[in-house]
Amino acid sequence: MMKTLEVSLGERSYPIYIGRKLIENSELFGRHIAASQVLVVTNETVAPLYLERLKQSLSGFTVREVILPDGEQYKNLQVWNRIFDALLENRFNRRSTLVTLGGGVVGDMGGFAAACYQRGIPFIQVPTTLLAQVDSSVGGKTGINHSLGKNMIGAFYQPRCVLADTDTLDTLEDRELSAGIAEVIKYGLIRDPEFFNWLEGHMGELRGLDHETLSYAIERSCRNKAEVVAADELESGQRALLNLGHTFGHAIETGMGYGTWLHGEAVAVGMCMAADLSRRLGWITEQDQMRSVELIRRAGLPVNPPEEMKLERYLELMAVDKKVLDGGLRLVLLRAIGDSVVTGEFDSGELRKTLHEYPVQAA
Amino acid sequence: MMKTLEVSLGERSYPIYIGRKLIENSELFGRHIAASQVLVVTNETVAPLYLERLKQSLSGFTVREVILPDGEQYKNLQVWNRIFDALLENRFNRRSTLVTLGGGVVGDMGGFAAACYQRGIPFIQVPTTLLAQVDSSVGGKTGINHSLGKNMIGAFYQPRCVLADTDTLDTLEDRELSAGIAEVIKYGLIRDPEFFNWLEGHMGELRGLDHETLSYAIERSCRNKAEVVAADELESGQRALLNLGHTFGHAIETGMGYGTWLHGEAVAVGMCMAADLSRRLGWITEQDQMRSVELIRRAGLPVNPPEEMKLERYLELMAVDKKVLDGGLRLVLLRAIGDSVVTGEFDSGELRKTLHEYPVQAA
Repeated sequence: MMKTLEVSLGERSYPIYIGRKLIENSELFGRHIAASQVLVVTNETVAPLYLERLKQSLSGFTVREVILPDGEQYKNLQVWNRIFDALLENRFNRRSTLVTLGGGVVGDMGGFAAACYQRGIPFIQVPTTLLAQVDSSVGGKTGINHSLGKNMIGAFYQPRCVLADTDTLDTLEDRELSAGIAEVIKYGLIRDPEFFNWLEGHMGELRGLDHETLSYAIERSCRNKAEVVAADELESGQRALLNLGHTFGHAIETGMGYGTWLHGEAVAVGMCMAADLSRRLGWITEQDQMRSVELIRRAGLPVNPPEEMKLERYLELMAVDKKVLDGGLRLVLLRAIGDSVVTGEFDSGELRKTLHEYPVQAA
Repeated sequence: MMKTLEVSLGERSYPIYIGRKLIENSELFGRHIAASQVLVVTNETVAPLYLERLKQSLSGFTVREVILPDGEQYKNLQVWNRIFDALLENRFNRRSTLVTLGGGVVGDMGGFAAACYQRGIPFIQVPTTLLAQVDSSVGGKTGINHSLGKNMIGAFYQPRCVLADTDTLDTLEDRELSAGIAEVIKYGLIRDPEFFNWLEGHMGELRGLDHETLSYAIERSCRNKAEVVAADELESGQRALLNLGHTFGHAIETGMGYGTWLHGEAVAVGMCMAADLSRRLGWITEQDQMRSVELIRRAGLPVNPPEEMKLERYLELMAVDKKVLDGGLRLVLLRAIGDSVVTGEFDSGELRKTLHEYPVQAA
């Protein structure tokens, strides 16, 4: 059964469809494509699995494709330009639709190309990883990396619709699935204690790819994110809660070199570190910290940062993180499971202890 | 005396200040800059003339600069990336302000970088050519070229304010000044017959750089453009009127190679061609056509297309112009001086005559 979730953003509102066999559903695509030209943006890993099936569903349109190399290290200006090459070589006009088929990298690059081609053309997202389905589907964040920082060049740009086909998760590697679950757990931790409890009871089904369980988890994650984003589309306040674990996580990703750690893995450890700091500050109990770490561990995720990362390296990398406003480091911290806050008011001595001692304590 | 014109775009409204000695006016800048970091984007021609004076006015802020090579041929992805290099090397955060100091190319590239850096930072435009003051100041069009098309990658993004300092026009080459006047004449032709009459009476003062005359022409041009843009921010309808002469003009610019013809020169000839086609269709009188051509000629602008451009080359280049929607060529044509229409309904035989015969007739 297909679920539909409406993301409410006034004129820019759009539906997220969640269920099985959505890539085969040509009626769904037809509903959201206004003109004849369609460019599919995908990558070398996903294309052999789903591109033909997607093109079948788009058989009523003039379809072209661009197949990018797979991996975060290709999320750069040069590879991004290949999308424009394809659009222009095929003389696509400003009523063309761009369809992204793939994980977060494809969605971010393709969405950003749609935002910029002739100053904006419609696009449709078909996320094929759990991470992309629960994270990139909502929020309109698109962009690419710069050698000096992740996601530094981009736009807020909303799709016409998102098709989260849970069948695509069957071909996902375990490690990728776990990375997606990290973001699912995040929604429980930051604002939905009931969902956190539910996850404690359903981690087995989730990792076992039970489609009903997946569908529920995706819908509830997207709903949580949609509520946050609707209240703060351009990320001036509350939306920053979605960055739980991300400031630590980005430091780890950058410090270890893009692609070594998956984003979700780095965020998983980052959430453990945020829980550690929250406990040190006396904001959550040791029991809540342990519940958090335990659920993350049961998701098949790392809970300890890489040994290579030292205090000074964290501080250096966190200083350039884009959540740093005018010199003050702001972090998302927990007040309870399901209750979080964005704050710059914490004892920096405790932060240094988390950065320096946490791996030792939790090991 | 400084004039202020408010561009009404709801939350994105901003003022255009027009007058002398504005670059020296630190109070004006201070009013629109919220945080300490400021990056000035300029080029090699403009920097020696005005950069120090501008930095003097910004002395209360942490100012860095990036000096780009001068010319339309550098309006590409690689040069654009140098702005991000500068922002990131200096660890500029998302509250930083970007100030563009230069002509249209600097404004387009800098504005587009501001639109994309960390998904959007504030920017201020200081246009230093007449063309940029009357055209780029209003409308929020930013972007860069692709090897397969002009302005194909970009964003609609509004500045916090525009400072049009008429003193900067004193150092402008005659040819550049005339190119700017082409766009000024355009506003008269498309929607403001009274302004067209005024221009017929003041072309001498305008070309002689009389500051009161310049100031009036800039204000009235910006006001015309602002009215059109306010009604159609994302260019779905009426805004296309601003493209009078541009479809022909782009074909000439591209056909002759970027940088050979100035944009304003190509538009000037394009407007003559639009007038010619309008007369062939019986929409305007021969007298009105001649008045249009004569005013353009008196502005020091070319009125005949380059001999190298042949019919087939026009048709080929016009087919990829981004105003072409789903195959149908739409043009801006005149119904009278000061009255224009965007239309796909014209006899294509007459269009071919304009493309083929016009230079012969008007020579």
